[in-house]
Amino acid sequence: MSKIMAINAGSSSLKFQLLNMPEEEVLTKGLVERIGLDNPQLTIEVEGEKKKETFSIPDHEAAVKKLLDSLTANGIIQSLDEIDGIGHRVVHGGEKFSDSVLINEEVLAGIEEVSELAPLHNPANIVGIRAFKEVLPEVPAVAVFDTAFHQTMEKEKYLYSIPYDYYEKYGIRKYGFHGTSHKYVSERAAELLDKPAEDLKLISCHIGNGASITAIDGGKSVDTSMGFTPLAGVTMGTRSGNIDPALIPYLMEKTGKEAGEIVNILNKESGMLGLSGFSSDLRDIEEKAGNGDEQAQTALNIFTTRIHKYIGTYAASMNGVDAVIFTAGVGENSDKVREKVLKGFEFLGLYFDESKNNVRGQEAFLTTEESPVKALIIPTNEEVMLARDTVRLSS
Amino acid sequence: MSKIMAINAGSSSLKFQLLNMPEEEVLTKGLVERIGLDNPQLTIEVEGEKKKETFSIPDHEAAVKKLLDSLTANGIIQSLDEIDGIGHRVVHGGEKFSDSVLINEEVLAGIEEVSELAPLHNPANIVGIRAFKEVLPEVPAVAVFDTAFHQTMEKEKYLYSIPYDYYEKYGIRKYGFHGTSHKYVSERAAELLDKPAEDLKLISCHIGNGASITAIDGGKSVDTSMGFTPLAGVTMGTRSGNIDPALIPYLMEKTGKEAGEIVNILNKESGMLGLSGFSSDLRDIEEKAGNGDEQAQTALNIFTTRIHKYIGTYAASMNGVDAVIFTAGVGENSDKVREKVLKGFEFLGLYFDESKNNVRGQEAFLTTEESPVKALIIPTNEEVMLARDTVRLSS
Repeated sequence: MSKIMAINAGSSSLKFQLLNMPEEEVLTKGLVERIGLDNPQLTIEVEGEKKKETFSIPDHEAAVKKLLDSLTANGIIQSLDEIDGIGHRVVHGGEKFSDSVLINEEVLAGIEEVSELAPLHNPANIVGIRAFKEVLPEVPAVAVFDTAFHQTMEKEKYLYSIPYDYYEKYGIRKYGFHGTSHKYVSERAAELLDKPAEDLKLISCHIGNGASITAIDGGKSVDTSMGFTPLAGVTMGTRSGNIDPALIPYLMEKTGKEAGEIVNILNKESGMLGLSGFSSDLRDIEEKAGNGDEQAQTALNIFTTRIHKYIGTYAASMNGVDAVIFTAGVGENSDKVREKVLKGFEFLGLYFDESKNNVRGQEAFLTTEESPVKALIIPTNEEVMLARDTVRLSS
Repeated sequence: MSKIMAINAGSSSLKFQLLNMPEEEVLTKGLVERIGLDNPQLTIEVEGEKKKETFSIPDHEAAVKKLLDSLTANGIIQSLDEIDGIGHRVVHGGEKFSDSVLINEEVLAGIEEVSELAPLHNPANIVGIRAFKEVLPEVPAVAVFDTAFHQTMEKEKYLYSIPYDYYEKYGIRKYGFHGTSHKYVSERAAELLDKPAEDLKLISCHIGNGASITAIDGGKSVDTSMGFTPLAGVTMGTRSGNIDPALIPYLMEKTGKEAGEIVNILNKESGMLGLSGFSSDLRDIEEKAGNGDEQAQTALNIFTTRIHKYIGTYAASMNGVDAVIFTAGVGENSDKVREKVLKGFEFLGLYFDESKNNVRGQEAFLTTEESPVKALIIPTNEEVMLARDTVRLSS
């Protein structure tokens, strides 16, 4: 039995969860926010209640110290010695990391090396790793990469049809993201379907504010909708997903903006926000569409159509599919989105059962008993994956 | 009975075909090349033989005069009065033209208005139209648009997930191309399948140096792989098809090139040329792959995988498919490409029959007798479509 800390460090935040393994029991979870900014704050769950505390937190090292103090002060653990391992989420592992890895200086250098591919995320992840290393130097730490699960893709799936030397010189290829989530739900699906993962063709739809669809054949990611960056693929909260690349110079000419600014608009002002004109939140848009707003309805149709189409794409990639999985915020909670995505798949042998769809945030089947192809909801749990890999690699 | 001229005017060329309608019999065909350049040349087919003639041809009007002289001089027609109509191919009709149209000054102004969307093609098409109007002012002329067939797409299919006002202000949306070809083969497929077009779900793969895939439900285009420009969609001879749009600023930074130059590379140095590193011609790449060249084999795999995936995408869009059609240079002639695209569709009910695939440039079925979903080759014929629409709209 061991206690494992699962960490997701952002540039000014630190999300944490302490788990008892192998029971996968959550002892506490919480968040340090506004690190290095005004009014920093620690939120921690104690006996089911959220406690908020305000301190001076100038940097991530201070955040780690406060967080650990808070664990003992609140009686969640008696001593820091009880912490047996730390699992760090790292966004980008490039082609270097195809699995989680026990962190040492060489690994840290490797994560730094691929930072160019995720300049907003990897540096913050590294800061989080170093802060824990300062405070708990003896506790083994493991890096779990968002990209690693997709490293099984074949070359014909991950190469873009651009000059080949751009891949060799600059590492330009499809990497894919949300790998920890896609892996978790695919393993859980095998349990729920009572079949070995090796025998299953799965399509996993991770639909949150970011969204990606993954084809998983025999337990391995064979294709995924995000690309070199998380901008590609389906329509998202604020991201465009795929567009005609020739739009960029056209929009530059029309708006007088630079390429970087246009891509910034594609990342932050597009998707559901751009289409609806008022919100990136599916709940707001569903409500407005329900009140007869035509533009909101069109935005919703676009959102669900793109996912529906990707399911067809990946069924073709695998010559069939056994189950379609919904996970993450929207996937777990929006019955409307699931219904619109899942209708019209009779040709695949997937028979949606509307009567089973009125559920939120829990495991459930969404297809008729007889449906040869299943659809199901599986709430994702990236923290458990971090803890599992930390146990596997540190013991 | 009438004689119709089908015209495809480029910036320095004029392709023509004279057809006897409604028999659709080709009386002659040919090409004027290097108009306004050194060594212009007219090639015309006379009794099955190609005749080449060299004249001074300073502009398109001169080209039209030479071409018409040549028709009478070679005894193909006795007098220009026999020409009853002229069908002009026009690349872009924007949202203005959802069908072919009898040309008058208002229509010409409309074609000019949308020229911004096809700055390399529409102006040349207009020059061709004006040249014929000068020489044969009394003969009715009809414009047939590459985009018109796709104007039946619904908003949820043609809108990009970008700020909505870019559509309203700049007309940015998916238009699609090769419409005349997709329409021709879909109509012909209905005849070959002996079913009304209204009852058929078809996926048409126009695969030449440019390539696009179209979903045709009940005779109407419901989705297509090209986009705002012909750059989007599948991998082509020199075009990348879809990429992560964030690659553009990344490549700009890495190469020091401007956005327009990068998109130029995506249009002219990517696709099979960029991947193989040596040719955009599928025949060259097939040969090299056959000799064990790994990079050529990967390029070929990418080419066929992308088409395979689109067929799945559009089957999902239509909740099934009755037949998959191959047309244009590669689609009609490459058995290897067809085989690689069509294998792995048993889940759809499409059973490829290798023994029927050894054909080039002729109508043929490619699936087993029992296959519920059919695949077939249908050589395209855009000239016949131009002639049909000219008869329909000018009589």
